[in-house]
Amino acid sequence: MSLLIKNGTIITATDTYQADLLIEGKKVKTIGQDLESEGAEIIDASGKYILPGAIDVHTHLEMPFGGTVSADSYEAGTRAAACGGVTTVFDFAIQNEGQGLLETINGRDKLCAPQACVDYAFHVAITDLRAEVLEELAVAVDYGVPSFKAFMAYKKSGLMINDAVLADLLEKSKEVGALIGVHAENADLVESRTEKFLAEDKTSAWYHYLSRPEFVEVEATKRAIHLAKSLDAPLYIVHLASAEGMAEVTKARDEGYEIYAETCPQYLYFTKDVYKRENGRNFVCSPPIKGQESQDALWDGIKRSDISVVATDHCPFQSEEKDWGKNDFSKIPNGCMGVENLYPYMLSEANKGRISFNKVVELCATNPAQIFGCAPAKGSIAPGADADLVIYDPQQEFTITQDKMHSDVDHTIWEGLKLEGYPIMTFSRGRLVFKKGKFLGEAGWGKFIKRSLRK
Amino acid sequence: MSLLIKNGTIITATDTYQADLLIEGKKVKTIGQDLESEGAEIIDASGKYILPGAIDVHTHLEMPFGGTVSADSYEAGTRAAACGGVTTVFDFAIQNEGQGLLETINGRDKLCAPQACVDYAFHVAITDLRAEVLEELAVAVDYGVPSFKAFMAYKKSGLMINDAVLADLLEKSKEVGALIGVHAENADLVESRTEKFLAEDKTSAWYHYLSRPEFVEVEATKRAIHLAKSLDAPLYIVHLASAEGMAEVTKARDEGYEIYAETCPQYLYFTKDVYKRENGRNFVCSPPIKGQESQDALWDGIKRSDISVVATDHCPFQSEEKDWGKNDFSKIPNGCMGVENLYPYMLSEANKGRISFNKVVELCATNPAQIFGCAPAKGSIAPGADADLVIYDPQQEFTITQDKMHSDVDHTIWEGLKLEGYPIMTFSRGRLVFKKGKFLGEAGWGKFIKRSLRK
Amino acid sequence: MSLLIKNGTIITATDTYQADLLIEGKKVKTIGQDLESEGAEIIDASGKYILPGAIDVHTHLEMPFGGTVSADSYEAGTRAAACGGVTTVFDFAIQNEGQGLLETINGRDKLCAPQACVDYAFHVAITDLRAEVLEELAVAVDYGVPSFKAFMAYKKSGLMINDAVLADLLEKSKEVGALIGVHAENADLVESRTEKFLAEDKTSAWYHYLSRPEFVEVEATKRAIHLAKSLDAPLYIVHLASAEGMAEVTKARDEGYEIYAETCPQYLYFTKDVYKRENGRNFVCSPPIKGQESQDALWDGIKRSDISVVATDHCPFQSEEKDWGKNDFSKIPNGCMGVENLYPYMLSEANKGRISFNKVVELCATNPAQIFGCAPAKGSIAPGADADLVIYDPQQEFTITQDKMHSDVDHTIWEGLKLEGYPIMTFSRGRLVFKKGKFLGEAGWGKFIKRSLRK
Amino acid sequence: MSLLIKNGTIITATDTYQADLLIEGKKVKTIGQDLESEGAEIIDASGKYILPGAIDVHTHLEMPFGGTVSADSYEAGTRAAACGGVTTVFDFAIQNEGQGLLETINGRDKLCAPQACVDYAFHVAITDLRAEVLEELAVAVDYGVPSFKAFMAYKKSGLMINDAVLADLLEKSKEVGALIGVHAENADLVESRTEKFLAEDKTSAWYHYLSRPEFVEVEATKRAIHLAKSLDAPLYIVHLASAEGMAEVTKARDEGYEIYAETCPQYLYFTKDVYKRENGRNFVCSPPIKGQESQDALWDGIKRSDISVVATDHCPFQSEEKDWGKNDFSKIPNGCMGVENLYPYMLSEANKGRISFNKVVELCATNPAQIFGCAPAKGSIAPGADADLVIYDPQQEFTITQDKMHSDVDHTIWEGLKLEGYPIMTFSRGRLVFKKGKFLGEAGWGKFIKRSLRK
Repeated sequence: MSLLIKNGTIITATDTYQADLLIEGKKVKTIGQDLESEGAEIIDASGKYILPGAIDVHTHLEMPFGGTVSADSYEAGTRAAACGGVTTVFDFAIQNEGQGLLETINGRDKLCAPQACVDYAFHVAITDLRAEVLEELAVAVDYGVPSFKAFMAYKKSGLMINDAVLADLLEKSKEVGALIGVHAENADLVESRTEKFLAEDKTSAWYHYLSRPEFVEVEATKRAIHLAKSLDAPLYIVHLASAEGMAEVTKARDEGYEIYAETCPQYLYFTKDVYKRENGRNFVCSPPIKGQESQDALWDGIKRSDISVVATDHCPFQSEEKDWGKNDFSKIPNGCMGVENLYPYMLSEANKGRISFNKVVELCATNPAQIFGCAPAKGSIAPGADADLVIYDPQQEFTITQDKMHSDVDHTIWEGLKLEGYPIMTFSRGRLVFKKGKFLGEAGWGKFIKRSLRK
Repeated sequence: MSLLIKNGTIITATDTYQADLLIEGKKVKTIGQDLESEGAEIIDASGKYILPGAIDVHTHLEMPFGGTVSADSYEAGTRAAACGGVTTVFDFAIQNEGQGLLETINGRDKLCAPQACVDYAFHVAITDLRAEVLEELAVAVDYGVPSFKAFMAYKKSGLMINDAVLADLLEKSKEVGALIGVHAENADLVESRTEKFLAEDKTSAWYHYLSRPEFVEVEATKRAIHLAKSLDAPLYIVHLASAEGMAEVTKARDEGYEIYAETCPQYLYFTKDVYKRENGRNFVCSPPIKGQESQDALWDGIKRSDISVVATDHCPFQSEEKDWGKNDFSKIPNGCMGVENLYPYMLSEANKGRISFNKVVELCATNPAQIFGCAPAKGSIAPGADADLVIYDPQQEFTITQDKMHSDVDHTIWEGLKLEGYPIMTFSRGRLVFKKGKFLGEAGWGKFIKRSLRK
Repeated sequence: MSLLIKNGTIITATDTYQADLLIEGKKVKTIGQDLESEGAEIIDASGKYILPGAIDVHTHLEMPFGGTVSADSYEAGTRAAACGGVTTVFDFAIQNEGQGLLETINGRDKLCAPQACVDYAFHVAITDLRAEVLEELAVAVDYGVPSFKAFMAYKKSGLMINDAVLADLLEKSKEVGALIGVHAENADLVESRTEKFLAEDKTSAWYHYLSRPEFVEVEATKRAIHLAKSLDAPLYIVHLASAEGMAEVTKARDEGYEIYAETCPQYLYFTKDVYKRENGRNFVCSPPIKGQESQDALWDGIKRSDISVVATDHCPFQSEEKDWGKNDFSKIPNGCMGVENLYPYMLSEANKGRISFNKVVELCATNPAQIFGCAPAKGSIAPGADADLVIYDPQQEFTITQDKMHSDVDHTIWEGLKLEGYPIMTFSRGRLVFKKGKFLGEAGWGKFIKRSLRK
Repeated sequence: MSLLIKNGTIITATDTYQADLLIEGKKVKTIGQDLESEGAEIIDASGKYILPGAIDVHTHLEMPFGGTVSADSYEAGTRAAACGGVTTVFDFAIQNEGQGLLETINGRDKLCAPQACVDYAFHVAITDLRAEVLEELAVAVDYGVPSFKAFMAYKKSGLMINDAVLADLLEKSKEVGALIGVHAENADLVESRTEKFLAEDKTSAWYHYLSRPEFVEVEATKRAIHLAKSLDAPLYIVHLASAEGMAEVTKARDEGYEIYAETCPQYLYFTKDVYKRENGRNFVCSPPIKGQESQDALWDGIKRSDISVVATDHCPFQSEEKDWGKNDFSKIPNGCMGVENLYPYMLSEANKGRISFNKVVELCATNPAQIFGCAPAKGSIAPGADADLVIYDPQQEFTITQDKMHSDVDHTIWEGLKLEGYPIMTFSRGRLVFKKGKFLGEAGWGKFIKRSLRK
């Protein structure tokens, strides 16, 4: 079966050109001018852009957290992904105490495999680094999982690892070629501030922000970077949200260290003021959204390529779960929706002229693929690559409303946002999984991606 | 007429993938797997790399200088270019006192057009910025020449412009979308130091270096960057050769300024020690090659993308002309060979693992094309682009010797350098102009490129 | 003859303590508690502060400039000094073309000696650095003049030296232990901007500022510091007035270079907005007063000891001379009044709590004495030192008005400024030269100070 | 009773001048030339320097630690102090779990008062910050103890406070005017590295260094500074020993933050190589001595005034106690001798020309007095101040050997060091307590100093 997309403008991280594109089976076969292919289905993409499918390297699907489970199942989450132009999701497999790494991976894979509507991979979040687990890192790398995560926050809930464990992870990752991601917030400060506010009956969502303001995130960001530099190990900072943390990343990169920073659309669009809204709890995620200065600094970091990746930290909860924290911000399950909004939001910003479309492709597809070892099959448009593609209409105006979204969640922080341009089709390995607002895929289609080391 | 290159590995600034490539006429038509094309000539590129032709944005062909004319005519220089995988050269049209800009461009174009073996463009070096010349910048931009150069050195010979003129140029360039390049050395310091050394009978090539050491270049580099930042104008620094200048570029880019730096292969491979050699005068160019610390800093700058372009400053002179300065370094005509060595040297470094091949393509083809406004026709490989291509054999060992070079010059500073990998074919707009050591092109084939503004 | 000052609070750069102070002849003899001295005249300083006399290291008295001569003669200027608590002035002896250094010094000394009401010294401003002048630097140092000045501005009027000359001066100063001060503004930029504004009929004092705004001063400041660092020579920057220049000074000092910065009261109190006043021309000095950001940065530099000296650049002109530039800012003679206001203004700021009194003593007396080689005789209070003293009443309120000033000038930029605290007596080498508003000294009393190298 | 010191050279932080000095009772009465005083004992100090007595703000006398008690009792330690020119010691009163602050102070005061040979003060080391303890800070300040300490190291032994506690302390200190000092080392990293080395049978003193190398100290230093800056609270870093920590201090001070750094003579003279010596365990202290780069950086910090204080961390143990760690570095009691060596070592460096004598006085006497609130009685030489004085013979050569020292400890890390110049007399509040190698004081003479807030 083959498919010929005619007359579109192909956009990669580097190039923008008009050409036809022929898909055969699951892969891109040919790109050229005036292509013909007998028997191929033909799609006219005149006036449309053809982009690599996005890779959202940061999702938490059906994750047990805060006394519940994040509201999107693997099926719902990957369905929403497909409908937002995301053709690969990286979910976090969180190690339980006593578990091994492969055990952790396989546990989640079993859950995910039958539900996945697009391809997927896992980072393992390490919470219990016993000696044998440290040794198992090399095994996980061979298994195709060369990326791990460490929480510097969440002490009480047992997710947090201390600095000595982080140092061990960094040293080992360097040895086996893996990459460690960190959630950088200072756990002691967060917990102490939270207790104080609650003791003073300061319970609204605004105090969620105040319990983990800029300097709390910055401290941990600096600490993680300091350790990585000192041990000469690579480091990936997930959901960077602060100006001063951004500056520290830039400094380290200028010095030649291999430090990557990821940020998320919520940090690029909103500011901390959302926590003062009546429904502020719906915006509660950690790290919280910071002030305008931080938002500006993140955009500047994107422009000078010191932000390498934009991903979502997609981890939504239902309104009634969010409501648990109506009178106590510490009871609000942390996390928001995003996987369906990432690419449309970023591309709309490009369409408005803030950055180039090439830059969006770089941030949301090419860099993630290269950093996390799934290029060249994923992340770009080239003959031989997986036909993970998005057809984008730069003329289509789109206002985000909950009813148009495809996740299982009953609200979205993006409600009402007007976008310029929107994806009109998504292909996952050549299969049309989304078209003009409708999901056309199926659970179980998505495959686990066995990854290599980053190049 | 069409040409099908089969089984090669295509390398762009972002992607590396195996595919066939079909050229029809002067352009790339199709890229894909298992391509067929009736009647097309077929080249088997198994095991070979297919690269965009390089763009050398810094040459001085048949340029009057130091009492003579640089030794490569436009024909010889562009012939050498073709044989080194360079498919576009940017030469400098130097304004004479009293001349207008278009007059300057047309004067050189007349000389160049009948000789050019590959495509070419001009930057105008402005030496006499009268009020009407300032107004003519917009005209030159419309004419397809949106880039200009200012010398901060060469006071005596009248090339130097002062800081007020540079400021005027920067302000105007911002207004009309042009880009100003600067040769950054402090003219007064150079001349004063030169006079002193000569007065002390210190006349060897080593004193060429000592008359314009690191701090002399750095001063002017900082000054130019300061002016560009203060006037919020873009700036392009040609042939950056110093560590401290590199640091200043990085700082400015971190701050969000649009500052580009170019360096040259001679600054990446040699150190100032060459000036102590018996034939040190052959290495005399300005700015001179600096110490190891600077070489290292330039490579670091390449790795973190603060060097945007590598070009050659190709401006060779015959041995007997170089000999004029045997007993007086100030009489040595400044400049060395490079246009045929740029791409082979850089690609060999990639082949040895120092940087990626993608990075070389970015530095020598994609960035030059984007910064100087000739993308997407030039600088990448995509359907619709000019078929300016290089087929590169990563296995071929090559030792540079003068007899294998294609310029008219009787010696080369690169003599004896062993390279890993070498271009085996060059195509200029689809025409094979170089094959396995032999030039196959012809004078007059190359066309003047009318350029747009940078994106 | 002896004099006993009882019950005052003595303030040095380090210490604050209550004690009596006995002067015998021209020197401080004893400091102690419950001092007695038969036959000594007794002054009760209860509730008063006893400070070292200030040293104003930057005055231009009866200086030919802008077609006239600065309005204060040596007599008027040193009289005003005495009445403002300044017991030593450093005036600039400006070399004429063809002159030698001692010739320059002696020419001014002859003029100054019969008029001086307080002690004085000279810096030589070098404008014509012939080879023999360079050699004469060591002679001037031996003569007691180890400090020189170079103008980076004032090209047309012939004061400017170029970078090569500055480099020569710096190298020689390092060799002979001297210190080079620079007036840092970019001459070409100033002249070009001035011409443009005049051509556009932009003639008000505001265009004086716009013709030499922050970046024009900053450029030259950076250039001078770069040269000093590169040649590892000490450097003294006179009248620093910009935030970015301040930052460059701090950076160089952090790196261990011997760079001193001086600022002036006008840069600490006013902002560029004064040039928009109707009498804006009265505030015209070069460099002009900058924006609030610069003022703040200078105060910060004082607090962290990166400003070493506060001096005045006292160079007033009569109103009618200032009026020459009513319709052409370039015709306004540059310079303002200050020598009588320096210490009262700075001490008043201390009195209001902005900085300590010790810090003011350090900036206005101790540091100048140490940097310019006249400690320990000048600049502090200790047995054996010259009895150059000020008795200061922290309770006395004082509003500056022209009629209370002691210079020959018919207006002051400080008109109307309310001070908290004011000097009530000044002693020059033990002689009371000022008391409660009245000048009591005499012309010819002041002596030329033969200075040593800085420690 | 009065004492007249004739003909000496008085050295303060700012001034150097020859004068006589009269002591009456416990205070300096008069300083002057040709002083006479009937009945006064006369000391001829011709050719000698008169210095303020040093203030060692960091000692641990008879401190329970590592299963023993530090080897110098209050008597022995303050006797050694007197013999080294130290006239005030600040000892640490370490809070036990459950104790209050005044209780802690009084407990140590009771021990110290009958033994003290020179004046003394306490910092309270806070280990158990209950809510009521936080409130008690203001009480301690009123009691004359406005300085506290927090350990970021020593987790297992219970001294460590976490980041939330440190933040609370910083916020409260800002409110009440107190100053928090921190011992900055990362506790988790130290403990983890220690366990690993011991598990690998790496037990020599060299592994003490490797268990807490540069980056371990630097991390905590950066963290403490980050918290202080974020909370806008002052901070005092005790025993800074690393280059990168020094750089962070400089940066913070440049930004205007009130951050003080203290270093110790052992970090200025030795390098980590001492831990490779056979008796390396005698040099074991925490933080350990670092590499040459750090030593150089600390001296540079002294020169540019970013080190505010040099003190000793005097905490010696007997050889047999040090020997407990012969086969296990973790069993070596941490700490070395220093109180008798501080001033002689620093003054000898001044005598050799490395820094000025004024700078040593500033670092070892004036700054400590001002920062810790005991100026003007302590830390300078002025009428009215306590007669805490040292007479120093710049000509006397002195080689440190254990038998000449006055502590109770059986060895010294300073054994064999040749000094140029040495104290020949020490006066504590006018009483001669040391003369030419002999201790002449008595236990119980020293008084508790009730301190004010820093100025």
